[in-house]
Order: sequence, then structure tokens, then C-alpha cells
Amino acid sequence: MTTSDASSLSQTGKSSKRRPAPRVAPAAIHDTAPALGWYSDNVLFGEMWERTELSKRDRSIVTVAALITCGHLAQLTGHFNRALNHGVNPSEIVEMVTHLAFYAGWPCAVSSVGVMQQVFSARGIGPEQVEQSISEQLPVCQAETARYLGMVAPALEEFTERVVLGDLWQRTELAPRDRSLVTIASALAQGQLDQLPGQVAQGLENGLNEKEIAEALAHLAFYVGWHKARSALPVIEAAFRAHGRA
Amino acid sequence: MTTSDASSLSQTGKSSKRRPAPRVAPAAIHDTAPALGWYSDNVLFGEMWERTELSKRDRSIVTVAALITCGHLAQLTGHFNRALNHGVNPSEIVEMVTHLAFYAGWPCAVSSVGVMQQVFSARGIGPEQVEQSISEQLPVCQAETARYLGMVAPALEEFTERVVLGDLWQRTELAPRDRSLVTIASALAQGQLDQLPGQVAQGLENGLNEKEIAEALAHLAFYVGWHKARSALPVIEAAFRAHGRA
Amino acid sequence: MTTSDASSLSQTGKSSKRRPAPRVAPAAIHDTAPALGWYSDNVLFGEMWERTELSKRDRSIVTVAALITCGHLAQLTGHFNRALNHGVNPSEIVEMVTHLAFYAGWPCAVSSVGVMQQVFSARGIGPEQVEQSISEQLPVCQAETARYLGMVAPALEEFTERVVLGDLWQRTELAPRDRSLVTIASALAQGQLDQLPGQVAQGLENGLNEKEIAEALAHLAFYVGWHKARSALPVIEAAFRAHGRA
Repeated sequence: MTTSDASSLSQTGKSSKRRPAPRVAPAAIHDTAPALGWYSDNVLFGEMWERTELSKRDRSIVTVAALITCGHLAQLTGHFNRALNHGVNPSEIVEMVTHLAFYAGWPCAVSSVGVMQQVFSARGIGPEQVEQSISEQLPVCQAETARYLGMVAPALEEFTERVVLGDLWQRTELAPRDRSLVTIASALAQGQLDQLPGQVAQGLENGLNEKEIAEALAHLAFYVGWHKARSALPVIEAAFRAHGRA
Repeated sequence: MTTSDASSLSQTGKSSKRRPAPRVAPAAIHDTAPALGWYSDNVLFGEMWERTELSKRDRSIVTVAALITCGHLAQLTGHFNRALNHGVNPSEIVEMVTHLAFYAGWPCAVSSVGVMQQVFSARGIGPEQVEQSISEQLPVCQAETARYLGMVAPALEEFTERVVLGDLWQRTELAPRDRSLVTIASALAQGQLDQLPGQVAQGLENGLNEKEIAEALAHLAFYVGWHKARSALPVIEAAFRAHGRA
Repeated sequence: MTTSDASSLSQTGKSSKRRPAPRVAPAAIHDTAPALGWYSDNVLFGEMWERTELSKRDRSIVTVAALITCGHLAQLTGHFNRALNHGVNPSEIVEMVTHLAFYAGWPCAVSSVGVMQQVFSARGIGPEQVEQSISEQLPVCQAETARYLGMVAPALEEFTERVVLGDLWQRTELAPRDRSLVTIASALAQGQLDQLPGQVAQGLENGLNEKEIAEALAHLAFYVGWHKARSALPVIEAAFRAHGRA
């Protein structure tokens, strides 16, 4: 596409949208990096967050998942609040953190608990507003059992089946569809392409549609960077095709 | 595996282990994210850290290597202390940080020095307890020499051979086996699969066995996330097969 | 290469360079991790930064780009200052941050603005010394237009063409050559190999030469770690070959 194509594109259609975007980026951004402030207000918040292809609640879910996964604690306070404003309830936020302990690693989850606690406290959200079931049974590692014999990494297989798939994914604190959204966002944030086909297929089974996943990818480009989003695009395309055939 | 398989599995064999797990996760985790606290106490610390397929000393080595590599400074104080308790000596910890300057990058190592210093100071570990040799010769970059002519990146090749392989890996402050464990953990933490086959082969040469490497992978799934661990599994399997044939 | 080869290499040629390296690493590094201090002074600063294959200005550009991308805020103060000392002007630094909002993600850029502000303030650099143009037109997302119909991720394609390529890359605050250097450094820092061939080809078009890119790779090995640098090497070699044939 040439630049003139691009500029002609931007002169068509939706010009009625061109009211000045409200200031969302903090003053420090506008003062020190005015163009970054402008892109923040006009492109990221003025356009991307306003697109209707994905709900604001879903945009908050993938944004928070990416921030926790990448350890961007400084941005997490604002986005936890935004998520609560967009209808993600406290139990779901706690469950997202718990889910990401497994998919992004314990340190990412544990570090975000402190931020979550402050946000909850500032909003007067107490433990009585957070429903959290706990498995009664202590899982026992059975990597020695026959079915795992001969596997290269029996413990990884066993924990995956028994704890991650058998327990974590069965928890009702977060809908399977939302859990898939979190898991896909976390894989994108890590640039872990090998896990995407399986997680995208699972997400489609769990009720996400292709348009939502593609829109989440575009949204996340702003939060995890263009490199990771562009690299994920062909993988997601292939996963859609494979799912269509299946 | 179906869920009922999983639950029947967890009712067999080792049920005698089902005493309540001691509380390891801090109160803030239990208060705000009870299920995360439960998984921490019962699964991560109650099961994984207790498995005998890898020593606690080795578990500490790979955990610390992953935390340094990912910049998880908040968790590093606790795990430096845990490592010292598990028999990693101060010289070895300093050398791990030095080794990771090369494999995870200078900023990761430099940032962790401050944490290390505080831990040492709190435990009364002084410089006299840290043995650190220093090469007498200042290496000189010889990328212009004939043997590097024609290479695309002569400087990278030259620094790799002369400094990393020729000097760093020759240092006696950390056993080659442990150095391999650190290097593999750091590659896993970065999701750098291309470097795994070579480092796994080197680790097997340096005295690690396949069971230990597979168990380190399962252990690290909790610290670097399931996505990276699952992606690494087929690469490690292939590396084991290739090594078995060699 | 055997160790004896390595040591004979280091005894040839440039021995006149063997004056003691000046102390660059902070005292805390030398006190707690003497070998790391030694490698810092003698290898990283004494050798790598002194090599003439890449200017110090370019070394600062790729270093700052890698630090912003990886969120290494603790090292950023020093390297922003170093970059200013090496001739990167304030407008270029602000533009690097803005560029990296897209390539490393918004949180990385936003977090580094605070550090940049402090550095500018300490040096008496005010807004009047930072030139920043702002597009007058508010871009409007046209993903619904005919040309994007049928694409899997129309929004990602559209934002890429209209905003990233059509607007960001057209900005004159940073030369295309330097913008390529920043983009390549950021891809290397993320271990995002799939984006390298295209960005390397673009960089060569924008005036970088192969020697500079290869030297930037060696330089960045110290800042993003050996694993990522070694993984990128064959990809960059292939990109050079493909460009040579084109």
C-alpha cells in the first residue's frame, strides 16, 4: 500500500468520527512525548478501544492478561480499575491472576496480587465479594503410574492433566470462553507461537469466534508490540483454517 | 485423559501424603487470592518442590536462574535465601549471576546484584566468603584474524569462542554440570528453543541426566509458565533422541 | 576452537591495547561480583563499546532500544545519558520511545517516559529542545473497506498500513536508518525471529550496511543475552543472502 492510498483511505467514510479525542494519556506523556500522547488518545484509546468488534470487557481481559504476563505492574492499577468498570467482576479478576500463575508463571501472578489488593482496597472490595472455591482434594503426583511410564517428562504431563486441565480449567470462577481469552493473550504476550494453534482451537470450542480472536490480536499489538502480533498472525490464520476443516 | 481418570488417579497410591501442606505462600496471597495460595502451598511447594527426581539444591539453581533471567526481583530475595539454605554456596550464587550476564544479558545480572548484596549482608556473608578468580589476561578482540574472515558476524563468533567458551565456562566457581543447569533454565525462561538442543547435549556431557533435565522442565513450568514449558518439551525430547544416537 | 587456540589468539596482535581498563561498572558490582565487574570494565566497555565497526551513537541507539523493550528501567537512566553524550539528540530519544510504543508495546514506552523526563530535567533539557510534529489528521480505521474484506485480521492490517507504515515511519524526527536500527534491536531483544528478515531487508534499504547490523548483533548479545543473539545469527545470515540475490 502506498502512502497516498493510506491517506485517501483515511479521508473516506467515517470522517464524522473526527471529533477531538478526549485526553486519556497522562499529562507527563503529553508534555514529554507529545506524539506518543497523541497516538495514545487518538489511535489507541480513540480508535482501538472504541471498535465494536470486541467488547470493552473482552478488551480489558486481554489487556490485563498481557500486562500480568509481561510484568508491567505500573500499568496494572489503571487497567484493573478499567476492567472492573467494564464489568469484569472481582472474582473473575482474582481467577485471571490464578490462571496466569500457571500460564505466565508464579512470579507474574504473585507480583500482581499486591497491585490487585490495593485496587480492591481503594474500591472497598472485600473478601466477601470474591468467591473462590478450593479443591478439597490434595492432588497427588502420580508420574510413576503406568500411563506415564516411558514419557520423557512424566511430571510435566501429569501436572498438566491432573492440575491444569483436570482442576484449574474446571473451576467455575471464570467462564471457559474468558479463560481461553486469557490463555491466548498470555501466549501472544510471550511470543509463544507453538502454543497458539491448540489454544485458538480450544478458544473456538469454548465459544470465542474468529472475529473476536483476530480483533484481540489487533488490540494486543498495542500492548505487546507489533513484532509479536505480526508473527502470530499467520499462526492464527492457519489455526482458523485447520479448525474450519475439522 | 478425562476428568474422571484424573480424579481416580489422585485417589490411588500415595494418599498417605495427604497431610495438610504447611503454609508457604504469604498471607497476602491467601487473603486476596485463596486458590492461588492453595495451589502454592499444596501443588508448587507441597508437591513439586518435594519430588525427589531433582534435588532441592538443583531446584533452587534453576529457579534462581529463571528469576534472574525474567527480572523477577521481587521473588529473588526469598529464592536466594532458599538457595543458600539448600546448599548453594555464596561463590556459586555470585558465579550464577556472572554467568547469566552473558546468557540473559547484562541488565538482568546487574539488577540482581543489588538483591544479592542485601541477602548476603542480612546473613553476614562478607567478601571473604566469596571466592572469585579473575582472568589475568585482558582478552583482545581478534575478529580481524584470518579464521574469522568471511564470517557474517565475526565479533559475535569471536567473543563466543574467546570469552564465553574460552574463559567464562572454564571458571571453576561453578561446576560445569551446574553451569549447564543454569544455561538451560535461562534458555527455557526466555522461550529460546533454538539454543536448547545444543545446551541439552552439553548438559548431558557435563553430567546431567535426562531425568534431571525433564524434571527441571516440569519444575520451571511453575516459574516461567506452562506455555514455555510445553513448547520446550518436544525440543528436549528430540535432543535426548539425538544424543542417544550420537 | 580449543582453549589453547583462544589463548594464543589473545596473545597476538593488539597487545598494545592492554592498558588497564577504566572502571565503568559501579563499586557495588566490583565489591559483590568481582568477575562481573571485571568483564564489565574489560570486555563490555573496554572492548565492545570501543570497537569501530559501529559508532558509539549507534551502539547507544541499539542499547537504549533493547533496554526499553525489555523494561530494564534501572539501566535506562545511565544509557539515556550515554546516548545524549554520544550525539543522539533529545528529539531522537523521544521519537525512539514513540516508535517503540508500537514495536515493543505501549507499556514499555510509557514506563520509560518517566525515566526520560528525569534525565532531561537533570540536564536542563526543556520541551523547546524537543521537536515533535503531530499528524493533523485523526486516522480513521477503515478495516471495513473493500481492500480489507476477507482478511483474517483486518484491523491489524489496517493499523499497520495506515498508522505504523503510513504515519509513524514517515515522521522525520528519526532518520529511517536509525528507525530501522531501533526496530531491529527491539525484535532481537524480544527474540522475535520471524520479523527479522523483513526488518533487516528494510534496514539495508534504509542505509544500514551488513557490517553494522552484524556488529549491532554482537553488541546486543551483551544486553539481551547470548541465547537470543545466537538464535538470531542464522536468520540474519539468511536475510543478508536473500538481499544479495534480490
